[in-house]
Amino acid sequence: MSMKLMTGKDYVLSLKEYNPDIQVKGKKVKSVADEPLFKPGINAIAVTYELAHQKKHQDIMLATLEDGTKVNRLNALDFSTDDLLKKLEMTRLICKWTGCGQRYLMHDALGALAEITATMDADKNTDYFSVFKDYLLHVQKHDLTCATAVTDAKGDRSKRPHEQADPNLYVHVVEKNQKGIIVRGAKANITGAPYVHEFIVLPTRAMQKEDVDYAVSFAVPVDAPGLKIIAKPAGRPEDTEAPFSSNFGQSTALVIFNDVFIPWDRVFLCGEWEYAGKLAEAFANHHRHSCIGARAGLGDMIIGASALMAEYNGLPHTDVPHIRRSMGELIRITEGFYATGVAASVYGHKTVAGNFVPDSVQSNIGKLMLAEQVYDIFRIAHEISGGIVATAPTPEDIAIPEAGELIDRYLVGKHGVTAEERIKMARFIEDLTASKEGGFYSIISLHGGGSPEAMRMSAVRNYDFESQKEHILHKLACFAKLEGTCKGCETCVNDELCEQECESAIAIEDH
Amino acid sequence: MSMKLMTGKDYVLSLKEYNPDIQVKGKKVKSVADEPLFKPGINAIAVTYELAHQKKHQDIMLATLEDGTKVNRLNALDFSTDDLLKKLEMTRLICKWTGCGQRYLMHDALGALAEITATMDADKNTDYFSVFKDYLLHVQKHDLTCATAVTDAKGDRSKRPHEQADPNLYVHVVEKNQKGIIVRGAKANITGAPYVHEFIVLPTRAMQKEDVDYAVSFAVPVDAPGLKIIAKPAGRPEDTEAPFSSNFGQSTALVIFNDVFIPWDRVFLCGEWEYAGKLAEAFANHHRHSCIGARAGLGDMIIGASALMAEYNGLPHTDVPHIRRSMGELIRITEGFYATGVAASVYGHKTVAGNFVPDSVQSNIGKLMLAEQVYDIFRIAHEISGGIVATAPTPEDIAIPEAGELIDRYLVGKHGVTAEERIKMARFIEDLTASKEGGFYSIISLHGGGSPEAMRMSAVRNYDFESQKEHILHKLACFAKLEGTCKGCETCVNDELCEQECESAIAIEDH
Amino acid sequence: MSMKLMTGKDYVLSLKEYNPDIQVKGKKVKSVADEPLFKPGINAIAVTYELAHQKKHQDIMLATLEDGTKVNRLNALDFSTDDLLKKLEMTRLICKWTGCGQRYLMHDALGALAEITATMDADKNTDYFSVFKDYLLHVQKHDLTCATAVTDAKGDRSKRPHEQADPNLYVHVVEKNQKGIIVRGAKANITGAPYVHEFIVLPTRAMQKEDVDYAVSFAVPVDAPGLKIIAKPAGRPEDTEAPFSSNFGQSTALVIFNDVFIPWDRVFLCGEWEYAGKLAEAFANHHRHSCIGARAGLGDMIIGASALMAEYNGLPHTDVPHIRRSMGELIRITEGFYATGVAASVYGHKTVAGNFVPDSVQSNIGKLMLAEQVYDIFRIAHEISGGIVATAPTPEDIAIPEAGELIDRYLVGKHGVTAEERIKMARFIEDLTASKEGGFYSIISLHGGGSPEAMRMSAVRNYDFESQKEHILHKLACFAKLEGTCKGCETCVNDELCEQECESAIAIEDH
Amino acid sequence: MSMKLMTGKDYVLSLKEYNPDIQVKGKKVKSVADEPLFKPGINAIAVTYELAHQKKHQDIMLATLEDGTKVNRLNALDFSTDDLLKKLEMTRLICKWTGCGQRYLMHDALGALAEITATMDADKNTDYFSVFKDYLLHVQKHDLTCATAVTDAKGDRSKRPHEQADPNLYVHVVEKNQKGIIVRGAKANITGAPYVHEFIVLPTRAMQKEDVDYAVSFAVPVDAPGLKIIAKPAGRPEDTEAPFSSNFGQSTALVIFNDVFIPWDRVFLCGEWEYAGKLAEAFANHHRHSCIGARAGLGDMIIGASALMAEYNGLPHTDVPHIRRSMGELIRITEGFYATGVAASVYGHKTVAGNFVPDSVQSNIGKLMLAEQVYDIFRIAHEISGGIVATAPTPEDIAIPEAGELIDRYLVGKHGVTAEERIKMARFIEDLTASKEGGFYSIISLHGGGSPEAMRMSAVRNYDFESQKEHILHKLACFAKLEGTCKGCETCVNDELCEQECESAIAIEDH
Repeated sequence: MSMKLMTGKDYVLSLKEYNPDIQVKGKKVKSVADEPLFKPGINAIAVTYELAHQKKHQDIMLATLEDGTKVNRLNALDFSTDDLLKKLEMTRLICKWTGCGQRYLMHDALGALAEITATMDADKNTDYFSVFKDYLLHVQKHDLTCATAVTDAKGDRSKRPHEQADPNLYVHVVEKNQKGIIVRGAKANITGAPYVHEFIVLPTRAMQKEDVDYAVSFAVPVDAPGLKIIAKPAGRPEDTEAPFSSNFGQSTALVIFNDVFIPWDRVFLCGEWEYAGKLAEAFANHHRHSCIGARAGLGDMIIGASALMAEYNGLPHTDVPHIRRSMGELIRITEGFYATGVAASVYGHKTVAGNFVPDSVQSNIGKLMLAEQVYDIFRIAHEISGGIVATAPTPEDIAIPEAGELIDRYLVGKHGVTAEERIKMARFIEDLTASKEGGFYSIISLHGGGSPEAMRMSAVRNYDFESQKEHILHKLACFAKLEGTCKGCETCVNDELCEQECESAIAIEDH
Repeated sequence: MSMKLMTGKDYVLSLKEYNPDIQVKGKKVKSVADEPLFKPGINAIAVTYELAHQKKHQDIMLATLEDGTKVNRLNALDFSTDDLLKKLEMTRLICKWTGCGQRYLMHDALGALAEITATMDADKNTDYFSVFKDYLLHVQKHDLTCATAVTDAKGDRSKRPHEQADPNLYVHVVEKNQKGIIVRGAKANITGAPYVHEFIVLPTRAMQKEDVDYAVSFAVPVDAPGLKIIAKPAGRPEDTEAPFSSNFGQSTALVIFNDVFIPWDRVFLCGEWEYAGKLAEAFANHHRHSCIGARAGLGDMIIGASALMAEYNGLPHTDVPHIRRSMGELIRITEGFYATGVAASVYGHKTVAGNFVPDSVQSNIGKLMLAEQVYDIFRIAHEISGGIVATAPTPEDIAIPEAGELIDRYLVGKHGVTAEERIKMARFIEDLTASKEGGFYSIISLHGGGSPEAMRMSAVRNYDFESQKEHILHKLACFAKLEGTCKGCETCVNDELCEQECESAIAIEDH
Repeated sequence: MSMKLMTGKDYVLSLKEYNPDIQVKGKKVKSVADEPLFKPGINAIAVTYELAHQKKHQDIMLATLEDGTKVNRLNALDFSTDDLLKKLEMTRLICKWTGCGQRYLMHDALGALAEITATMDADKNTDYFSVFKDYLLHVQKHDLTCATAVTDAKGDRSKRPHEQADPNLYVHVVEKNQKGIIVRGAKANITGAPYVHEFIVLPTRAMQKEDVDYAVSFAVPVDAPGLKIIAKPAGRPEDTEAPFSSNFGQSTALVIFNDVFIPWDRVFLCGEWEYAGKLAEAFANHHRHSCIGARAGLGDMIIGASALMAEYNGLPHTDVPHIRRSMGELIRITEGFYATGVAASVYGHKTVAGNFVPDSVQSNIGKLMLAEQVYDIFRIAHEISGGIVATAPTPEDIAIPEAGELIDRYLVGKHGVTAEERIKMARFIEDLTASKEGGFYSIISLHGGGSPEAMRMSAVRNYDFESQKEHILHKLACFAKLEGTCKGCETCVNDELCEQECESAIAIEDH
Repeated sequence: MSMKLMTGKDYVLSLKEYNPDIQVKGKKVKSVADEPLFKPGINAIAVTYELAHQKKHQDIMLATLEDGTKVNRLNALDFSTDDLLKKLEMTRLICKWTGCGQRYLMHDALGALAEITATMDADKNTDYFSVFKDYLLHVQKHDLTCATAVTDAKGDRSKRPHEQADPNLYVHVVEKNQKGIIVRGAKANITGAPYVHEFIVLPTRAMQKEDVDYAVSFAVPVDAPGLKIIAKPAGRPEDTEAPFSSNFGQSTALVIFNDVFIPWDRVFLCGEWEYAGKLAEAFANHHRHSCIGARAGLGDMIIGASALMAEYNGLPHTDVPHIRRSMGELIRITEGFYATGVAASVYGHKTVAGNFVPDSVQSNIGKLMLAEQVYDIFRIAHEISGGIVATAPTPEDIAIPEAGELIDRYLVGKHGVTAEERIKMARFIEDLTASKEGGFYSIISLHGGGSPEAMRMSAVRNYDFESQKEHILHKLACFAKLEGTCKGCETCVNDELCEQECESAIAIEDH
């Protein structure tokens, strides 16, 4: 099969084939590809296309389909631990380049849809899995980027969808007919929305019977009639003090579905309310795993920049104990949560669809770790780097010769490091950690892929408490046997264990 | 004596009497009082004048001099635990209003100068204390605001002043004559520099004999010849998404002393290098104490805003356990570090100058706590508030009627809370915690008043290990006595203790 | 009035006047005063009597009654911030000597009873306060030690008293008559129970109407008929490796009330179920404040011993950066939570009974801090001290000459420090931090005075959220005014504030 | 080749073939196999033999040699990621059964010796690798257990071996002859010393030229002449309140080498001082990886027991939010540090000897995480379980019928849970977390395999800072190019990157 592998430039040009209804900072966008306020976001996604063309990265950037065709791994399902590990490394790589590569949200949605459509088909004799497979092929064939739309408007967070004062606060089906369905509502906080080709829409939570109309999942082009996008700028395209986020960033948007028609061959779930929560959780599991790689890439950048800043200040970690300790903390945090992504890959399992999913306890605790620790990363980077991160003179002042000379003179670092180098590095660190962009990173780390509380709940829900409890009860029973107070195997929690392990315990004791 | 108590307006007008050489964002400032880029900073300092006129705050905003005259407490020395407690409450109050009231840096410098000038006079028969007292009177009489300039340019941070490649990287005396001294160098990161009346300049660190020219402290008007200020805007005066920091903020500046003349009646230390470190540390001690109050004020704002946001979302802490837990953490952090300021006040002591200083172990650990925990405050506020803090639509989009209506519809919160209210609160929280202003707050909390490592060192250096060690050795000796293995009082660490306490130990045992 | 101030010896002898029904480690106790398994506990309480006779401690160990009489502060109410501060210092002192002085539980119960009996009298026209005052006089006159019994047996922790399968799982009134009441049930985990003169019994939680019989509080001598005590040994009296806890420790006991008669002049609450929770919370507030002082005393011992151990190892904190950092952490933790006790004292308030109570937000967060951080204290002490804390040879091995010589040779520390000194210090640290005694300290720090969750709830419940929210709403209103979008004072949350503060905001802006 | 796979009983009997010089608690040990004070330790090691005979565990308990022979994995080298993962799971399994299986120290020493002997041979043309391989065969053939002796007596920790006052404070060579070497000194804190077959001795640190005699590594039977062991009891064999540690525990010992002869075919390093540190670090790397699995096994037990205790109290994590949160924390900690072991396995690498070693950054941060977090595990277990962990009545009291009945009545838990069950579980948790055994676990977690500071240093030393710094410098160069301020490729840190990646950056930008 012939699959397209677009370059960055191809991707940018491909956006011109769509004509979405988008507004940003109060103005209608005529051409997404040419909109400066989206350029940092477009750049970031372009990197996901470009890196797939670089030989040294192709092992992780490309996946091989059954027939041997290569596709961008972001468009592929995972089929093994090795695939999951490479996906993890891929998200780390693209985020180390871009801050947030955004496109992995699509990868995660595809993995979840594969599993849940196949599960529904197996359970309920529906035919969603083949719809999904056709769609997957479509994505791969055109090397598409889809935004994944999960979070609804929600209104009163203490109420379920059907309990809201306004029924439109969650996306829902307002009409079904032979050709397809019509949906209404809004999805909030949608990453990358303005500069994608299509949306994949998933339910945001578990549903009850009364929420049946809200149990819906589908795909739709960005320029479908009735679809409106109110977007924020991607990164800080206009900020002269933002060397990173003027080049790379993410737009988030409010996406309104004003009675949008979805044909049946793009509908992945419609009314099967018992599966809404499973689909949301399956997506979350894949996505939390991806976030682990993503934020490790951010950690990498901050470690590199902090190490340089320390050297520029004359206080390198090799010489100064407290800087070394701080560096060690940055490493411990970044590699510490990254390790959970590795473990989630190693202990992943195959679904009924044949694809592979990360271990959900590990992916949840890893996402929780990074969510909370990204703030520590910022703190430590600031401790290493010093106050200049907040107080470097403005570029406009530096540009005035007289002032520029004074700044050059007085803000030098260790011998051989110019004020310009120090200020540039300080600004880079400020941009990533102490700016609206830094704040954005912290909040998407915390809430992206679900709130910390959602992770805490999932990790506990998916943990195998029973085997741990059994082991303890068995141990206490063994001790009783050794002490002669055992009340016999009929009271034992696990006869088989007892036969096998108590005997060996007694064998040990019996010498 | 007649003292002036300026209003906010008086203060603003008073700035017009000075003509400093200031540059901000590449332009020369003609009138500080009229410069929009400084307005948030000027507003903040104006509040310190205004609150002193409000009856309900006068108990903490005003101090009473020996002759009964009232002055703004920010211009006064502390003479008791009660004064220190009120100063702490005052910094909390003004920072709860303004984010950072800035003017307490002057208060802290005055307290340190009182102590160290008196100490030098006592030790070395100098006459600095009377110079200081005259200056204090001058400040009080005119109700001045002084910036405190401590941090030098520093260059290679691993080298001492006299070891730097460029001798000007620390402020130093280049000439002394009958009338005064001439100083050269630069001070960096100077808070509030553009909109004050005068500077108080202190050494930034302990000096050695070779650094003798760098051991200098003095006061100087903001418009002294040769003094040049390269300032950053105060807050975010031009940011339409910054409801707080477009109204209140702080400028920091690089302040260059290009051979500035200082008359002897404004010189507080000149060449007494052994006292440079003491003066720096004395200032740090006062200032760390003030920072505790200041950041508690920030914590107060964040607690209030988070509590409202949780309610707007339909998830108030009264109903939702994990929100309650997070609220509890915010309280624990804010009141937890505030308590160290209280304890530092209660266990403060009188100096040879007669003024009162906070306990340095407590002020150092408190500053360390807030330095590290401000990041936790931000994290928890974000966890409580949700992703909207980062993703609220721009004001420009809201202003477009069609989009505004959709936003109104879809971003509502719990019943009765409009999208506008939710977005306004989200924006307020973003401004304080997830913006360049938030980043600024985190970094000044971390590095303002000295780096965390400086606090760690000071706390340990000032701690009374000897009495703790003695107590343990005595305890072990007592046990030996009880066990009959005591080798006699001559081996005892503390004869007096032994006589008194061992005897009672034996009395106890002897029943 | 003539009050008794017993010495330690007096106290021990006084125990012989009681004949309680006590069992420990399977044996009936004939004479509490002579029971070796209680000796460490008796020693600890004896210290509370002895220190009151030592001049240098009398300022904090003695309280002065209205008529000028001096009593042990542990027997007195607090009437001011100064009293609360001294009480805090007293608990620190006695626990620095004994690990846990135990007797402050009585002090805390007296403070709570004063407040709540007076409150009931005021609200309901009862006459409990005078009963209480007579009892207080009785305690002071005889310089008694009372155990405070709060925690009931509880059974199923998810059920209220009246819902339990067995009605006796909470202490309750089974009969009332003219002379008094008869109570039945059991109190668990009662500190110091075997070697006190009397018990003060308080309800353990808030009650509902159906729990009316469980709402009861009273005092009773330790040897009242029907009262049975099943105690654990105090400390580790038989452990040769426990230099500290073989001398000082605490017994806890299960105390069974098997239809015990209580005369009306010892009944402080009986059936007023609405006050049961208030009394429990009032006690908790006083007691959490005391725990802060108590655990600071433990921290002091661990700091002293760790500093010595580091020196013995040749790695003093003055030379080794990571040891200094760890020392700093010990100080930060100990002085950090101690500060909350100070703040709780400073911001305490007077009750309707005239006595003074600590600020409950501060006392709750402080207790929470120490509860969680005592584990950190242990960890850091271990990091400083090294593995020898767990691996020091046994005393029995040291006693064998051949082995003793080898140990002497090989376990020496830095020059001049003998193996004996190192091992003795290691053993002392093991005893406090890595033994059953250490485990006991950690658990009573965590659960004594209520579980961490109880503290989290109390801190949030008692916090003044309203004023914080108001401040924010007012701020937003001010900004609106400045921006010209204010909708008028009628929408303002606080008219008075607005008049006063908005005006000044405008005054500021209006320049 | 025929290899032995001993059973637990075989192992115990095999100890009778050795006649070591051992002393414990002041008495000479006649038969190790029959010594009650060592029984818990012997049991633990017996489990490592027994589990290798249980079918369901053989995949992880057995390793297959090149010729297809199966040996206990504890006696085998690792040759792949899969081997490292299984070794990790094996240590978790055996420690989940025994608290600490001890025998993995041997596995770790073998892995380190393989690498470093082969390295020395390659570098210096020595012939140590074949000596090592013969020894490995010997170990495998007889299914031996060896203790690994690393930590020297050390004396003044601030001084190197040759600087010590007494030259014997580190083990060293006092004579070399044709047959072998004679060694003198002492190794401290040796785990399992009394009940092993042989010792493997490794240097404890990096050496300098002057320390040449201290650079020595060898193997020696436990009963070699001149070898003396002063041991502590294994676990708490005599403690009636210790259900776990009276059955399973570890002895540590001081092992004295009083001029012990070692034949050349047991000498792995002798005088090659440059490799002493490498050998110590290689061992540490393997061992820190093992510790991760080991402590995860401890975490498993504590999670199981805490979950049961919560249920017994009527407060299961499924119903009670704060218990659920605590459970989630236990999982996060345990699986969090376990994940680093998985990542260390996945990113391990092959040595010159052909064996596989874990990634040292991951193994170091993982060991550091568990070292510090074991204290948190204890804290959380205590929070979940309640005060009964410290206050459960003694077994002796329960045995008295009258008291036993009262205890049965009053210490019941939720409906259907007897007091006996609650107390048994409380005692189990106390034994693991709040006793001398718990203290021991905390300290060996902290200091076993090196102090936390050693881990912090190793993690930073082994981290690849250069590639992180390069990435940032390259990024800044790219931005410069995009902004037109690039100074040309000659200033670029990495030409190749620039050619490849800058080009693609420009390709992206160039649309």
